[in-house]
Amino acid sequence: MTTSFHAVIPAGGSGTRLWPVSRVARPKFLHDILGMGRTLLQATWERTEGLADPSHTWVVTGEAHVDAVREQLPHVRDDRLVAEPAPKDSAAAIGLAAMLVHREDPEAVIGSFSADHSITNTAEFLSVVQHAITAAAQTGDIVTIGVTPTYPATAYGYIKTGDLLHLEGAPTARRAAEFVEKPNAATARVYAYSGGYRWNAGMFIMQASVLIDFLAAQAPDLHAGLTRIAEAWGTPCQREIMDEVWPQLEKKAIDYVVAEPAAAAGRVIVIPGDFGWDDVGDFDSVAKLRQPVPGESAGVSAIGAGVEVVDIESRGVVISETGRLVALVGVDDLVVVDTEDALLVTSRAHAQQVKAAVAGVDRAGRGDLL
Amino acid sequence: MTTSFHAVIPAGGSGTRLWPVSRVARPKFLHDILGMGRTLLQATWERTEGLADPSHTWVVTGEAHVDAVREQLPHVRDDRLVAEPAPKDSAAAIGLAAMLVHREDPEAVIGSFSADHSITNTAEFLSVVQHAITAAAQTGDIVTIGVTPTYPATAYGYIKTGDLLHLEGAPTARRAAEFVEKPNAATARVYAYSGGYRWNAGMFIMQASVLIDFLAAQAPDLHAGLTRIAEAWGTPCQREIMDEVWPQLEKKAIDYVVAEPAAAAGRVIVIPGDFGWDDVGDFDSVAKLRQPVPGESAGVSAIGAGVEVVDIESRGVVISETGRLVALVGVDDLVVVDTEDALLVTSRAHAQQVKAAVAGVDRAGRGDLL
Repeated sequence: MTTSFHAVIPAGGSGTRLWPVSRVARPKFLHDILGMGRTLLQATWERTEGLADPSHTWVVTGEAHVDAVREQLPHVRDDRLVAEPAPKDSAAAIGLAAMLVHREDPEAVIGSFSADHSITNTAEFLSVVQHAITAAAQTGDIVTIGVTPTYPATAYGYIKTGDLLHLEGAPTARRAAEFVEKPNAATARVYAYSGGYRWNAGMFIMQASVLIDFLAAQAPDLHAGLTRIAEAWGTPCQREIMDEVWPQLEKKAIDYVVAEPAAAAGRVIVIPGDFGWDDVGDFDSVAKLRQPVPGESAGVSAIGAGVEVVDIESRGVVISETGRLVALVGVDDLVVVDTEDALLVTSRAHAQQVKAAVAGVDRAGRGDLL
Repeated sequence: MTTSFHAVIPAGGSGTRLWPVSRVARPKFLHDILGMGRTLLQATWERTEGLADPSHTWVVTGEAHVDAVREQLPHVRDDRLVAEPAPKDSAAAIGLAAMLVHREDPEAVIGSFSADHSITNTAEFLSVVQHAITAAAQTGDIVTIGVTPTYPATAYGYIKTGDLLHLEGAPTARRAAEFVEKPNAATARVYAYSGGYRWNAGMFIMQASVLIDFLAAQAPDLHAGLTRIAEAWGTPCQREIMDEVWPQLEKKAIDYVVAEPAAAAGRVIVIPGDFGWDDVGDFDSVAKLRQPVPGESAGVSAIGAGVEVVDIESRGVVISETGRLVALVGVDDLVVVDTEDALLVTSRAHAQQVKAAVAGVDRAGRGDLL
């Protein structure tokens, strides 16, 4: 049996903790926040090229970002680029993609991969996803990837793993016992060192029809709305129906609408994946993923075109969009983010609290900087 | 006896530790580095207005700064604004001013006050300087002001005080036993708590003729050069002689050429002065002198026109020339200096090491930023 596979890239999310690089008008996935020479979206697209060709690769993004996405992904097909009139979270985005795939290809398996994550080992990623595709086609279950925790993260959700399933073509696949929310530090430590929990990397691989069935059962209104949109897709009414129906859709994460109920019903499979995954959630992640290399500086990573850093007894990361010279003197684990209209200085340890600063900027009446 | 008094404001020095606000082309004294609504030079001028009118107030500055000085000090007289073709330190600057004063007014007392220091209590300053003027006119000695140490500073030179002189009109005047260089921390602690040492605020008050005599005795070449310049002053040859002689002058501090030998000869008087003096030597000084006031922020001082700071659990000082919003998150005692072409981030504790960063900027080939 040859499985037809479609990759879905939900390109949404605000990346508030990466402000002031990430903005409402130009969020995280559109930036080369790691200084790799390509944006997070471009890196995601390149990875999925190993899974599906452009005719099988869908990008779902906000209307405001369609032009930027098209510019960054010259090979994305117009009929695979789905524009959301408003952000409605992942259940709507991936659900619509599933329906559009299903109309063309009722047997297809789809896999969703966020546009703003980082993976160091693409070969391993591709191999694991192939196992997931095989498992999804074989079982009709929802397959997810569970990343081995490398530290007791409190910023990630976890998946409790169950029995080994001994599936053909997916030898490491296990039953997923439960999805658990971001834990506190004490719980995270237990999870990380137990061997029985894995990070939820937000990747879901399943037959399109299976996802649609779960939506019908768990979120019938959402299912009905998406069905109306999918039926009008490609017709002269596409735009009209989209604009009428989409704004009314429930805003729900696919985790809550599909993955958790499916796990409770014993219908989720988890495949261990150790390919250097990180959700690039804050500047501490950025600093970790982009440690300085000899020749750059002893302790400071410099990210950004033409960025010039002079550092004296300092450690940290400088992200610059301005090309100004940045001098650091005697500062430790500092994060400096230099953009044309806003400057952020924080420490790696406080990276999660950048969100509070963004709220403060809003309160200060500077919505133009969000 | 009515003493004729002339104030001399040497407006020089690079203020390297206040980079990137202070630049070679626009040094410290030309900046409102404390956010007081006037530059350090303007504040100095305003203070000396209580001592001398514009016909008796001299400003000695680099040729490159003459226009800026004239712009900042609308009342400075052209014939009292002395332009140095090159920086030759304080002995040449104050020595020339003394000779120019002496030509007009052989009995005059002069006092020199750096253009880039801060004083909180002007009334007390004026009162102390009046005592110094009286002492200088009465004794023919060099009179200096000794500031009571408020902490064991290692960035200031000290004056060891001797016996009380019981001078009429200057009841607190003492003999100065010795000038000592910037001490190490252990020595500074001894000095500060001994009661027998005072900070050398670099203020010298003396009869112009006395300074000239000391120059003749201690630095005959410098004296000869300055004499040639002073003789040509106001003649058609002024410019020619200045350009010929000035570049050859010895570069010496008045402390070494005059004050120390005079002290060794028992010819220096020190008058205690407690008027909130600070040399604004680095950003730690700036942060100390400009602590946040309620209403601004709990912990962050914001200096600069239109500067906007959003701070979350942070303490420190932000100095901005760009008007960009600056967000601080979880950083302590930080110093952020935001200018159009260079950004400095350091801590108050490392403020002295900014000099090393400036050297690094130079080494990096960015002399344009110095």
